[in-house]
Amino acid sequence: MRTQIAVVGAGPAGLLLAHLLRLEGLDAVVLETRQREHVLSRIRAGVLEPGTVDVLREAGLGARLDRAGLEHQGFSLRFDGAEHRIALTELTGKSITVYGQQEVVRDLLDAAEPEPWFGVSDVVLHEVTTDRPSVTFTDADGIARTLHCEVIAGCDGFHGVSRNAVPVTCCERAFPYSWLGILAKTPPAHHELIYAHHERGFALHSMRSPELTRLYLQVAPDERLDDWPEDRIWEELVLRLGTACEPGPLVEKGITSMRAFVAEPMRHGRLFLAGDAAHIVPPTGAKGLNLAVADVALLSKALTSLLLHGRDGNALSYSDVRLRAAWRAERFSTEMTEMLHRSADPFEQRLSLARLRRVASSTAAATALAQDYVGSSEGA
Amino acid sequence: MRTQIAVVGAGPAGLLLAHLLRLEGLDAVVLETRQREHVLSRIRAGVLEPGTVDVLREAGLGARLDRAGLEHQGFSLRFDGAEHRIALTELTGKSITVYGQQEVVRDLLDAAEPEPWFGVSDVVLHEVTTDRPSVTFTDADGIARTLHCEVIAGCDGFHGVSRNAVPVTCCERAFPYSWLGILAKTPPAHHELIYAHHERGFALHSMRSPELTRLYLQVAPDERLDDWPEDRIWEELVLRLGTACEPGPLVEKGITSMRAFVAEPMRHGRLFLAGDAAHIVPPTGAKGLNLAVADVALLSKALTSLLLHGRDGNALSYSDVRLRAAWRAERFSTEMTEMLHRSADPFEQRLSLARLRRVASSTAAATALAQDYVGSSEGA
Repeated sequence: MRTQIAVVGAGPAGLLLAHLLRLEGLDAVVLETRQREHVLSRIRAGVLEPGTVDVLREAGLGARLDRAGLEHQGFSLRFDGAEHRIALTELTGKSITVYGQQEVVRDLLDAAEPEPWFGVSDVVLHEVTTDRPSVTFTDADGIARTLHCEVIAGCDGFHGVSRNAVPVTCCERAFPYSWLGILAKTPPAHHELIYAHHERGFALHSMRSPELTRLYLQVAPDERLDDWPEDRIWEELVLRLGTACEPGPLVEKGITSMRAFVAEPMRHGRLFLAGDAAHIVPPTGAKGLNLAVADVALLSKALTSLLLHGRDGNALSYSDVRLRAAWRAERFSTEMTEMLHRSADPFEQRLSLARLRRVASSTAAATALAQDYVGSSEGA
Repeated sequence: MRTQIAVVGAGPAGLLLAHLLRLEGLDAVVLETRQREHVLSRIRAGVLEPGTVDVLREAGLGARLDRAGLEHQGFSLRFDGAEHRIALTELTGKSITVYGQQEVVRDLLDAAEPEPWFGVSDVVLHEVTTDRPSVTFTDADGIARTLHCEVIAGCDGFHGVSRNAVPVTCCERAFPYSWLGILAKTPPAHHELIYAHHERGFALHSMRSPELTRLYLQVAPDERLDDWPEDRIWEELVLRLGTACEPGPLVEKGITSMRAFVAEPMRHGRLFLAGDAAHIVPPTGAKGLNLAVADVALLSKALTSLLLHGRDGNALSYSDVRLRAAWRAERFSTEMTEMLHRSADPFEQRLSLARLRRVASSTAAATALAQDYVGSSEGA
């Protein structure tokens, strides 16, 4: 088998990259170890920056997004028993769009031509520092295959094989808490997101649609899901959010650990990392999907220049440009995480409150936060 | 002996408090374990917020300050090999005044009537939870004395006895670096302060007068002063600041550890803590002296209401009000410290650079920083 770009991973980064490359007339094959149904059912982030929406629209993926996406012009911070709204649009002129990552993946799979190879195994990358790399794998029928290519795009996430093929020097950080998340069939308790800082821990009220509410609770890193029956989850949400929530049937329930990770460099020879393979942000800033989309928007341009026109400028600078953006996102996500979560350290607890009070009392501080949140370039 | 307010400590907090109380017609006695010369020669901070200058002027202490203080309308951040100015006055409408803490202390001692009791020892606070507390001590002549009073003001710093007389519950933090500071007889290399973030470590260029330069280098917490002969200091400063410095004779040379500390509460019965006895900030934000002045400005009002008019409202809220301000200062000082210093942790190193780049690229972020720096109430 032969293609121009072997894309490892059919998450939003890999699917969108393949889509953008094909729009440029390039040939890309996507390999995915999971089954199609699993990929479609993975529930992740749901806040799109305007820059992300632009990329999706320009790629012809905006139809359902424009119908079903919810435009939000602000969100609420709740602390000290009161609510403070961050008026995103008033402060930055921009808004965010609430549209689940699994919806983006569905739009991408609907548009995918050809289909990714799902259910592959034994994926190994070869000769990535030459102009003729390849990927060997076993397909869903158990047949061993070799995919020859000119470039490999590693879009297979933190647990994929791609990042281990790059001599990475940096960096990881763990956070001392996890998120217990539920997706429930119930109307959102509020029309905007609520980020609540409470002495019992952080809570987040979000939504996927007018009928689907997404809710999170800060829990201990070693928390067991069994210790959280539905009643306890709803009681705790009401306490922390300070808002009545109408319980509804759970569509999903899970615990996510909080991690930050950046692979430096993001390129090794003809292997380019994008999305979670290159960087993990703690979810508090909702930057993961946005960062992945911006990665592949640049990468598709870089590979078009390289493979169609023989110009390697964007390919050579890809890692530096995207690392700067990744660290911008890590900074913001770390700051949001530390401001909103309840630390076990009394000093840190008081710093969190001081940070929240400052955002609530200084228009400049609120504007800086809003710029980060919408991904405004002035906050670069 | 009898007085209305026993002030323990003749640093800027204690001296200014006694001065302000006497202006209100109250009787205050100041006790200090050190000698007068030692108090006068202690070199500390040198950046006054406009609110601090206002308090000093209104207390009749502005004559020399207005002559010798240097008004600064901005400062520079240096990183990535380039300089970025934070235009304080443009961004906030306010400016800072460079005037050494030892000059403030000199002005206060010139105005002190009666003189503090210098060189006392064995200071012990008694019955602070009653209306009739007292302080026992041995005077400079070796005579044991008892000072009966109505209120004790603990202004004796982090190493004094006062904070240990308060059942404090919170909080301390250490930083993994120290400052090597010199005061040199040489004109400043630049007309404004320069905060330099360099891979060899943080450096700060400041001044006390057109002939006196104050310079700092980040060093390891266990650094020995003997390992830093003058030549090495000057070479290192030039490297980190990226600016030629004209070496001059050293007036002072020392290593200061970096610590954050807040005593909660700041009041216990009739004992009130102010200044470094209540809180230590890392010096990067230049908040220590400003916080002390704001403490005693409120405390003098609170004690006037309490002792002259029998109204205890301000005395009861003193701790809460000043703790909120202390945590605001701790937040800012911690953020400045972490942004500017070179951490040993690669993740933190990259966050520092991302923070600096953001301040340099977002007017909102620069404004928030400038508000914190000048102590603007909008940044509260």
